[in-house]
Amino acid sequence: MLPIRKTAKQGKRGILERLDAGEIVIGDGGFVFALEKRGYVKAGPWTPEATVEHPEAVRQLHREFLRAGSNVLQTFTFYASEDKLENRGNYVAEKISCQKVNEAACDIAREVANEGDALVAGGVSQTPSYLSCKDKTEVKAVFRKQLEVFMKKNVDFLIAEYFEHVEEAVWAVEVLKESGKPVAATMCIGPEGDMHGVPPGQCAVQLVKAGASIIGVNCHFDPETSLETVRLMKEGLQAAKLKAHLMSQPLAFHTPDCGKQGFIDLPEFPFGLEPRIATRWDIQKYARKAYDLGIRFIGGCCGFEPYHIRAIAEELAPERGFLPEASEKHGSWGDNLGMHTKPWVRARARKQYWENLKPASGRPYCPSMSKPDGWGVTKGAKELMQQKEATTEQQLKELFQKQKV
Amino acid sequence: MLPIRKTAKQGKRGILERLDAGEIVIGDGGFVFALEKRGYVKAGPWTPEATVEHPEAVRQLHREFLRAGSNVLQTFTFYASEDKLENRGNYVAEKISCQKVNEAACDIAREVANEGDALVAGGVSQTPSYLSCKDKTEVKAVFRKQLEVFMKKNVDFLIAEYFEHVEEAVWAVEVLKESGKPVAATMCIGPEGDMHGVPPGQCAVQLVKAGASIIGVNCHFDPETSLETVRLMKEGLQAAKLKAHLMSQPLAFHTPDCGKQGFIDLPEFPFGLEPRIATRWDIQKYARKAYDLGIRFIGGCCGFEPYHIRAIAEELAPERGFLPEASEKHGSWGDNLGMHTKPWVRARARKQYWENLKPASGRPYCPSMSKPDGWGVTKGAKELMQQKEATTEQQLKELFQKQKV
Amino acid sequence: MLPIRKTAKQGKRGILERLDAGEIVIGDGGFVFALEKRGYVKAGPWTPEATVEHPEAVRQLHREFLRAGSNVLQTFTFYASEDKLENRGNYVAEKISCQKVNEAACDIAREVANEGDALVAGGVSQTPSYLSCKDKTEVKAVFRKQLEVFMKKNVDFLIAEYFEHVEEAVWAVEVLKESGKPVAATMCIGPEGDMHGVPPGQCAVQLVKAGASIIGVNCHFDPETSLETVRLMKEGLQAAKLKAHLMSQPLAFHTPDCGKQGFIDLPEFPFGLEPRIATRWDIQKYARKAYDLGIRFIGGCCGFEPYHIRAIAEELAPERGFLPEASEKHGSWGDNLGMHTKPWVRARARKQYWENLKPASGRPYCPSMSKPDGWGVTKGAKELMQQKEATTEQQLKELFQKQKV
Amino acid sequence: MLPIRKTAKQGKRGILERLDAGEIVIGDGGFVFALEKRGYVKAGPWTPEATVEHPEAVRQLHREFLRAGSNVLQTFTFYASEDKLENRGNYVAEKISCQKVNEAACDIAREVANEGDALVAGGVSQTPSYLSCKDKTEVKAVFRKQLEVFMKKNVDFLIAEYFEHVEEAVWAVEVLKESGKPVAATMCIGPEGDMHGVPPGQCAVQLVKAGASIIGVNCHFDPETSLETVRLMKEGLQAAKLKAHLMSQPLAFHTPDCGKQGFIDLPEFPFGLEPRIATRWDIQKYARKAYDLGIRFIGGCCGFEPYHIRAIAEELAPERGFLPEASEKHGSWGDNLGMHTKPWVRARARKQYWENLKPASGRPYCPSMSKPDGWGVTKGAKELMQQKEATTEQQLKELFQKQKV
Repeated sequence: MLPIRKTAKQGKRGILERLDAGEIVIGDGGFVFALEKRGYVKAGPWTPEATVEHPEAVRQLHREFLRAGSNVLQTFTFYASEDKLENRGNYVAEKISCQKVNEAACDIAREVANEGDALVAGGVSQTPSYLSCKDKTEVKAVFRKQLEVFMKKNVDFLIAEYFEHVEEAVWAVEVLKESGKPVAATMCIGPEGDMHGVPPGQCAVQLVKAGASIIGVNCHFDPETSLETVRLMKEGLQAAKLKAHLMSQPLAFHTPDCGKQGFIDLPEFPFGLEPRIATRWDIQKYARKAYDLGIRFIGGCCGFEPYHIRAIAEELAPERGFLPEASEKHGSWGDNLGMHTKPWVRARARKQYWENLKPASGRPYCPSMSKPDGWGVTKGAKELMQQKEATTEQQLKELFQKQKV
Repeated sequence: MLPIRKTAKQGKRGILERLDAGEIVIGDGGFVFALEKRGYVKAGPWTPEATVEHPEAVRQLHREFLRAGSNVLQTFTFYASEDKLENRGNYVAEKISCQKVNEAACDIAREVANEGDALVAGGVSQTPSYLSCKDKTEVKAVFRKQLEVFMKKNVDFLIAEYFEHVEEAVWAVEVLKESGKPVAATMCIGPEGDMHGVPPGQCAVQLVKAGASIIGVNCHFDPETSLETVRLMKEGLQAAKLKAHLMSQPLAFHTPDCGKQGFIDLPEFPFGLEPRIATRWDIQKYARKAYDLGIRFIGGCCGFEPYHIRAIAEELAPERGFLPEASEKHGSWGDNLGMHTKPWVRARARKQYWENLKPASGRPYCPSMSKPDGWGVTKGAKELMQQKEATTEQQLKELFQKQKV
Repeated sequence: MLPIRKTAKQGKRGILERLDAGEIVIGDGGFVFALEKRGYVKAGPWTPEATVEHPEAVRQLHREFLRAGSNVLQTFTFYASEDKLENRGNYVAEKISCQKVNEAACDIAREVANEGDALVAGGVSQTPSYLSCKDKTEVKAVFRKQLEVFMKKNVDFLIAEYFEHVEEAVWAVEVLKESGKPVAATMCIGPEGDMHGVPPGQCAVQLVKAGASIIGVNCHFDPETSLETVRLMKEGLQAAKLKAHLMSQPLAFHTPDCGKQGFIDLPEFPFGLEPRIATRWDIQKYARKAYDLGIRFIGGCCGFEPYHIRAIAEELAPERGFLPEASEKHGSWGDNLGMHTKPWVRARARKQYWENLKPASGRPYCPSMSKPDGWGVTKGAKELMQQKEATTEQQLKELFQKQKV
Repeated sequence: MLPIRKTAKQGKRGILERLDAGEIVIGDGGFVFALEKRGYVKAGPWTPEATVEHPEAVRQLHREFLRAGSNVLQTFTFYASEDKLENRGNYVAEKISCQKVNEAACDIAREVANEGDALVAGGVSQTPSYLSCKDKTEVKAVFRKQLEVFMKKNVDFLIAEYFEHVEEAVWAVEVLKESGKPVAATMCIGPEGDMHGVPPGQCAVQLVKAGASIIGVNCHFDPETSLETVRLMKEGLQAAKLKAHLMSQPLAFHTPDCGKQGFIDLPEFPFGLEPRIATRWDIQKYARKAYDLGIRFIGGCCGFEPYHIRAIAEELAPERGFLPEASEKHGSWGDNLGMHTKPWVRARARKQYWENLKPASGRPYCPSMSKPDGWGVTKGAKELMQQKEATTEQQLKELFQKQKV
């Protein structure tokens, strides 16, 4: 068995130092979904005020990911831009300043990162300002405000993630590059490209030209689909003779039935996704496939729990030469079932069993796939949009709900 | 909206005081499964040495259940009997004494219980001693050893849970009754009864006669099946003119395809159960059905995460008059989706939507049900057992594996 | 390979002669469903006026069953009682007399039976008269009218089939016994028994006491369920120390989700049952299981096409010593795929492949099981029935439809 | 209700006369699959010697399609080229000459066509000669031999169908055009194009340039996929400024999981396809969609039974102004269920019910989709092909079978 390693072998090194050396860097999992289930984040607004309200819960989740093998702890600053927090303000129990949330996120991540071999990455994501058509200067100002906190707290590098439009992602990268720190950029798009129709290959080219050293995708699609998108990005870079490290942080949900906008449009989003949750074996397959594709920054997004991250670390343990701390409590491919009292359960203590298992859903009255909702999908919705009289969003919603059922 | 309540309204009262007054008592969820996914428990042995090794992780999970509405925090002492820990000893990283594990479990549970309106319940479960045919005196000695710790740490009441044989459960109840504290007893059986064929109604009668004030089922089967078992127990008590409070702590997995021995025999146990995980809405239906059946101690077992417990508390909030703390971060029936940017997601902010959703599995290559493994099921296995030459367990296992495709 | 046999080896012998000698008798398949798909029978009324309107179509179907191995050709007289034809009269294109329909049915069956080794069985089934509460004398008069035709046309034996109430079935047997010919009787019930709650074992006893020499089940349930019902009938006869030959003619549809009243209550009845159609391999398994249970009159009902009957004949060919004529065009267990151009299709030319195949539905948006409709099932329907003001069937229907989505 | 029409209103007109006038022409269904189930065709060779051996069975099936609404009766000459019949010769019970089979096929089709408003189309399909790399002259000679019979029997027009390579289809069209009769040409390809990678649009262009007046697809894919292929063909013609009538004759099986080579590679082909069979309502949707796409020659291929063809005729009855003869026995959208005895079955007598029903498979242990077999799909198979030592097909097959589970 490979040794378990808790801390860095030779002093903590930067993100590019690692990737340039060809090492595998393991990302962390999804905070908003995990903490929603634990009772600290509200689905809908998805804001991270828990860093101030319940730091112990955020700290514990960081610790679990570290223990599972994460080399990067992302500050829990998703949707923590000022415009977003204001926008969702009525959901936040007490009025907590945007700055306080961001600063607390940095402090907690740093505290845990110091317990092992992990870097702290400060993260920004798409803004309401962009969606409501604010101009470049205004949008950049929002990012810059978050960056100030990251610089004050001295994070190790920066990630611009969860962008549906490459234009906004490029603006974010440009702002983050002002810091002089390495910048990673991931978009929440599928093989069909961004919401304006820019294909993945072109998105990749624009992000690298804007200054990103690491590019890829996060969220919105399952591992299979996300890797296809990264493959297209890689092709785009090769065609443009550009170089960058590749990164993937997909969902831990099966979404073969997604439309262009990903899992948000599935009827099960966000409170009925359970039957789609990936097993640890699904994730081991993802890790192997990502590695074979040349991706070296491999992590997860919504749905990824600590045991999913551990699955990445275990699958790639032969390449890395060691196991993560949490493997103390996990036998490779179920081998610790070998001591179960029932012989037929003991018979499951082998790779071949779990690798080939097609898990039943236990839901004989449910289908296996869904038709996504959405303007783009529902014929009626499209018609509604074309109707002159449906001018306000509220009216649209009413019309939409009426013609549903 | 109903008010959120964090602590007891009128001083903390005992378990029987509450149940006798007709109040709803909410149990907690499953520790071994939740902590296995967080990286602190090993599947297979399922032992609770984390109380000593990583108390912060156990504490955090207790806190999440408390926050979700639990009125009972069970000490994390599952499979913590001396014979079990010895039996599984080679899995425990450092040699940790059984007593230390049990004491730490009590301390952590008490610390968190004091933060809200929850009682501490010390728990014992079935023993290897019984399964290896030790006699009544020996088995009782094992329970008594654990009871000593519970008495020293002064837990509020006791639960004998996860028994497949009513005979052993009765012995456990008899030992626990020596303490003078209230005793609850739950069996991990389905409608077909215990492993010796004693039907649920008779199990219930025996447990109450042995001194249990609260009886019911836990683990092994999904909510639907478990409630059917409790219904049969209730009928048994009525027929025998006995009285007891009813309790249910089922799986949060769908298991319509289980055989007599429950989910352990399903091919997906324990590492491929994800597609079977109950949604919060499934659990709300369970809570309502349990209440309608007259059950007043309503909790969960393996698979129950904090958000599942919150679902019980939210479903029964009208009866209880208040919501749990974690409902600060949860809109009833998805109502906080009302502020989502996409109209078709906003259209999901209503009870009717989630109540009727049949969630797709996203797994078109998987079936919906499985045939359970097990001697009782596989014809070949049965024949093997009858073969004279297959005398040792090891030989049986080899034969069994060979005849599996 | 076993020889193909087209005609009787030693002169045509009677039904009891064969069964008493321990021979396997193969029944035919379902006429109303097959001819509905071919365009000659109307779903809903399901009446057999095609014997007069399109004799060539009826003749061809008989021929296909004969060729597939049937030893019994049932006259196509299902629902051909006078009260039924009148009741459904407005559906019959031209007014065709009941007698003409029945006589033509006998003539066609006899013509084809003479082409091979098959007997002609005249059949009666449950009557509207019984359901509308006519008394014993009236109901018996209806059966007697059909019997007159069967006697005039000199059928070889008689079958009373498709009865939901054993009381009516007994009356039918009593009438048919007046002829002096052997009488078989099958009920369309499941393991829960008849519509008045008489269990299968008791139904069997009553039918044998009334004079039936062959008893069993037909229609309404899938092979698996039907065999369970016959097993219960067999137990009933053994307990009563009665003897009779056993017979089964189930659906060729999978109906694991049926309620007490069988496939009619499934939402897919009758125009959406396709995904449930049994494969030939399913039917081979049925034939073997039926044989092992001691059933010797093995056939099918709705959904059974000629190739399903051939599957029975092929599965039991080793016991019978020969193959049916249609096996000229069918390799056992797919062995004629051995000459396919593609190697992976050739690889399917073996029993193990087809025996173990779990056929996909190609319908990822459909569930695997349905909740049956019906008064007994739908809570709202039950309430409607209890409402005083819903006195007429029409009102009931309207109320029912209204409260359906 | 629309009138039923059995014969032509104004004398029988030619195929182009009808299509040029904008009329809808309804094709027939699949003979080899239907007659295999009836016991007259052998799966694997799929040859049509039944025209000689059992003309009554072929005649009856033609009659059912005519009655269901077919305006074209294709001679049952599928795979009846000399090279094919020889190739499969050992399967044909008695040695029947190729010419006899083809002549009998023409005679039977003509006899039935004369009973109503249908044309006779002589058909040729892909040849073993082409697949074994014979040259243009040799392949054309094979087609010319069949054409001689069609000319002698004076069929109304010709169809070149079931071609996987456009090159061979073009050769067939060129030969058929020598006759002076109108020629239709359909390929059994999907949206990815022919087996040499020629996309559908280019295939269409080549076929029209070769002389086909009607082009489209048949077999291999489900209606949904086939219509997408025709759409691409239509686009190709528009881009090339060519004109032709469009035609579709897809499978009546759901095949969303097909690879490039269609349903043959699905593990269920050909003996486990039942759960995929289209309902009549699926076919009505297909007919509507085909019509909306501009297709006017609408029929079916394997899996299409008479009731599926009737569904096309009923869906398009408003456009055509009349119903087919078989609608005498079919209420539109189930409306004859209105007289059923059970109110909840009567409640199904409406379009909305059947249109929206998602039929359950009744197969909870089966998946909804399959992974196709095939060299192109199985990694192991690909490797095998690259191995030097696997030189013969037989060796390949053995290796392939070995590395299958």
